[in-house]
Amino acid sequence: MSTAEAEPGSELSRDAFLGGRLHLWQPRMGYRAGVDPVLLAAATPARHGQSVLELGCGAGAASLCLATRVSGLELTGVELQSFYAELARRNAAENNVAMQVVAADLQHLPGDLRARSFDHVIANPPYYERHRSTAAADAGRDVALAGETPLGNWVDVAARRLKPKAYLTMIQKADRLPDLITALAALDGRLGSIRVRPIQPREGRVAELVIVQARKGGRAGFVLESALIMHEGLRHEHDGESYRAQVATILRDGGELPWSS
Amino acid sequence: MSTAEAEPGSELSRDAFLGGRLHLWQPRMGYRAGVDPVLLAAATPARHGQSVLELGCGAGAASLCLATRVSGLELTGVELQSFYAELARRNAAENNVAMQVVAADLQHLPGDLRARSFDHVIANPPYYERHRSTAAADAGRDVALAGETPLGNWVDVAARRLKPKAYLTMIQKADRLPDLITALAALDGRLGSIRVRPIQPREGRVAELVIVQARKGGRAGFVLESALIMHEGLRHEHDGESYRAQVATILRDGGELPWSS
Repeated sequence: MSTAEAEPGSELSRDAFLGGRLHLWQPRMGYRAGVDPVLLAAATPARHGQSVLELGCGAGAASLCLATRVSGLELTGVELQSFYAELARRNAAENNVAMQVVAADLQHLPGDLRARSFDHVIANPPYYERHRSTAAADAGRDVALAGETPLGNWVDVAARRLKPKAYLTMIQKADRLPDLITALAALDGRLGSIRVRPIQPREGRVAELVIVQARKGGRAGFVLESALIMHEGLRHEHDGESYRAQVATILRDGGELPWSS
Repeated sequence: MSTAEAEPGSELSRDAFLGGRLHLWQPRMGYRAGVDPVLLAAATPARHGQSVLELGCGAGAASLCLATRVSGLELTGVELQSFYAELARRNAAENNVAMQVVAADLQHLPGDLRARSFDHVIANPPYYERHRSTAAADAGRDVALAGETPLGNWVDVAARRLKPKAYLTMIQKADRLPDLITALAALDGRLGSIRVRPIQPREGRVAELVIVQARKGGRAGFVLESALIMHEGLRHEHDGESYRAQVATILRDGGELPWSS
């Protein structure tokens, strides 16, 4: 993401993603998408013509990044906060992407959504549980960062909305991996074939994020993938570009982050 | 490990570990220690004078490797199979290491062991659950590879035998990480501050093993460490030595595998 033009008289900024292939309006002060939704989209194994449901889509960054890489997707986003849902609609329209955005609590989806199933569910759930974190100054940012909805509900809703053998792909802070694994385990095998891709800032550092994939009815063994390493070098040594080649391809060219075969 | 002298007229072999610092008798045909107990010992943060309990110690490889790196430890091993327990006693004696070996089921420890607590518990539990695996031809190897004891019992016994703030260190196949994490979660916080070190055969490959550390009463967040990568190169290209320098230091010189600070 690179911050760009401000909308005159508003509190939004218009930011370039994927090397300018995508531009997204985001609140200047609230929750702002960074590399996380871009990595989530890169790791989602969607193919032309498939349907994708994003839970908690915010301003639409992950779904719209995915649409930039894969054409012909049928995109649906659910977002609790109507302000962000409206932004996602605007962002989809301005980037010429067809995306249905539903302002709803994922725990109380409207009936027409509950009647549908999808080839993919993707999600970048809030990174903190509310009771564990101090409230952010901005209420919208607070909900986006520290949700009320337990991770168990996110994966349960995902499991219900996936077609058989279809994929859930999530990105989350690495320190919540045990919460995510126990939430998936509590589904009693409805989601299986779990894979985890650690995301490290540099070689030798602990992971900051994890991308977790699970498959509806999957029976394959758990796989811990090789880490994606974001930056060259063992420490921050100078300002400016330091992304590794694979990461630069993902962030600037909309490249895929493949899973091991 | 490098296989060496056979004992005449027996089914044992005497194998060199840690570049010859340690020699262990092992059954030729049964369960044989490889790099796993060496890595487990390298990752155990024991200091001079501390007490260490190894659950399922087999022929004693992990405890004796640890004693080679750290002097003055008070070592205790529990082993279900009396044949292996006897081997562990012999291996300790022949390597001039003081180690008490108790032939017992870890779920039914004798009273004097249940009365003690330790600075460290270490374990390399069987890699398969019996009901999921086919029986091995050798019964002893079968118990060592595919135990009857669920992982939950291993971590529960470890939690009971640890002093406050003391460490459990385990090595396990990577595909059982979810089982281990859910087993630890089921302890309701008796063990926390969980860290996971993936072990990959090469760069870019999925992890084959994980070393998992947990701390009695620990409250720190989960940490996913950078992977230890065993071999140079992206594939096996020629016979002979290909260990990375850090791994060679661990396997041949008895070096430590430190956790991030």
